Amino acid sequence: MNLADSSEDDLIKRVTSQLSQSAEVLVGPGDDCAVIRESDSYHQLLKTDCVVEGVHFLAEEDATRVGWKAIARFVSDIAAMGGVPHSCVVTIILRSDTPIAWLDALYLGMRSCASRYALSIVGGETSAAPVGSANVISIAGTGRVAPSKLTLRSGAQATDAIFVTGQLGGSIAAKHLDFSPRLNEAHWLVEHHKPTAMMDLSDGLGKDLPRLAAASSCGYLIDREKLPCSPGCSPEQALSDGEDYELLFTIPQCQKNALERNWPLRFPSLTLSCIGEMDEQISSQLTEGWDHFKTV
Amino acid sequence: MNLADSSEDDLIKRVTSQLSQSAEVLVGPGDDCAVIRESDSYHQLLKTDCVVEGVHFLAEEDATRVGWKAIARFVSDIAAMGGVPHSCVVTIILRSDTPIAWLDALYLGMRSCASRYALSIVGGETSAAPVGSANVISIAGTGRVAPSKLTLRSGAQATDAIFVTGQLGGSIAAKHLDFSPRLNEAHWLVEHHKPTAMMDLSDGLGKDLPRLAAASSCGYLIDREKLPCSPGCSPEQALSDGEDYELLFTIPQCQKNALERNWPLRFPSLTLSCIGEMDEQISSQLTEGWDHFKTV
Repeated sequence: MNLADSSEDDLIKRVTSQLSQSAEVLVGPGDDCAVIRESDSYHQLLKTDCVVEGVHFLAEEDATRVGWKAIARFVSDIAAMGGVPHSCVVTIILRSDTPIAWLDALYLGMRSCASRYALSIVGGETSAAPVGSANVISIAGTGRVAPSKLTLRSGAQATDAIFVTGQLGGSIAAKHLDFSPRLNEAHWLVEHHKPTAMMDLSDGLGKDLPRLAAASSCGYLIDREKLPCSPGCSPEQALSDGEDYELLFTIPQCQKNALERNWPLRFPSLTLSCIGEMDEQISSQLTEGWDHFKTV
Repeated sequence: MNLADSSEDDLIKRVTSQLSQSAEVLVGPGDDCAVIRESDSYHQLLKTDCVVEGVHFLAEEDATRVGWKAIARFVSDIAAMGGVPHSCVVTIILRSDTPIAWLDALYLGMRSCASRYALSIVGGETSAAPVGSANVISIAGTGRVAPSKLTLRSGAQATDAIFVTGQLGGSIAAKHLDFSPRLNEAHWLVEHHKPTAMMDLSDGLGKDLPRLAAASSCGYLIDREKLPCSPGCSPEQALSDGEDYELLFTIPQCQKNALERNWPLRFPSLTLSCIGEMDEQISSQLTEGWDHFKTV
């Protein structure tokens, strides 16, 4: 049996099932970030994320955009917990024939994104990649979140309304390299309409909503006609393309109207769509989405 | 100009020179870990480290040993700051044709090492590696260190005695996959004979001592006859093989005798060797050691 014979989620379950953690670890594997008790005023968030040539970006891509994306993915995960990015370290594994100008451009993009979201790049690690290997950039680091603002994937309840920000699908055409992590939006939400559950959409709604539902021991009912499809994209693409980096979250029905009233006042240029509701019955309505190891 | 045309240290200097960090970042790039102010009782250490197939381990190697090594390298860096490992996240980038049994063995080794050093594995990230790419395991995470115990590379003074633990050279024959990070030894040192500077030896003394000296704005004088060579190794190998994962540290001459008296009482089975002293004059006596990008 090879990795290709198993789904990514099953592999993750397999390797994380036997981990033991200290009592200070409040949330281990399975959410956007791990959560560690740090002080009365905040918890520490810990996250790692990588971009791999040929998987997350093409070799001929402008390295400045690759650098932006690498940092923005990290920020997006911290945002999805209701947190504030703090510090990160950068691991770069590059072939020796990589131009120094490429490395310079990569760091230009990383610095630009880190500076935009007040994230400190505090160190890193470099290794050569053997000839023929893909170049890799991995970002790991910390964020902070007030205990009252912490939002997990696991808090959704049956009947909660399901929302997504922005438009889904077609990210590969451009957006995936230049996206803005929804940090301000997440902070506003946890402050004013705290979601019962939240995550960022990286592998596509068809993959990520079932994850949120499973973490919350719920099912879900989606109205495909309400999916906010990117221009030119079908509902299937909205479900399966992935790399949307939008927020997926749930709130109690009783707060739905107030949220829909207040959102456009605060974020007039970003759509917010109610796409369905959580359900008591565990469902498997969606099967689309991006799987890293599955052979298609 | 490609990466191969520059030294690893020059590349790191190049990409880290323009980083901006928040005031809470006490130590940024250039030491074994970054240091972040967290509370009155401890600082946070942040570190990332990776092992790459074909660079740090061979494809045919027992994955349990690869897993041990990946975690042990992280622990070694936390130890070198005088710290205690806390939590880490694991990034694995693997080809789809990797056997699931290999992944199981990798995690067995990682869990075993993490458990030995009370490190919590709290999450991670998986990505497919394109066909033909090297498998990669990257470990990033945190440690904690009391402000009074924090030991940097940059504190050495001229005339300080230079010490190394254990024996150097020949690590590739076996030790590099099974080594014990010097966590207890480092804690005893910072408690009883606090070094003025300390780091772990990963790229070889010939590469790492010049780094410690440069960070401390000092030179150094080494007596090659005093190098503790592993059985069958020449002084040149002791300087250049790398992956020793021993401690390199400096202490004032006035504490040298007491340290040499107390060490064998506490660590009877691990040699401690005084190999020279720090010097006022910036020197470049050593040029050996492992460089990731340099073409030989």
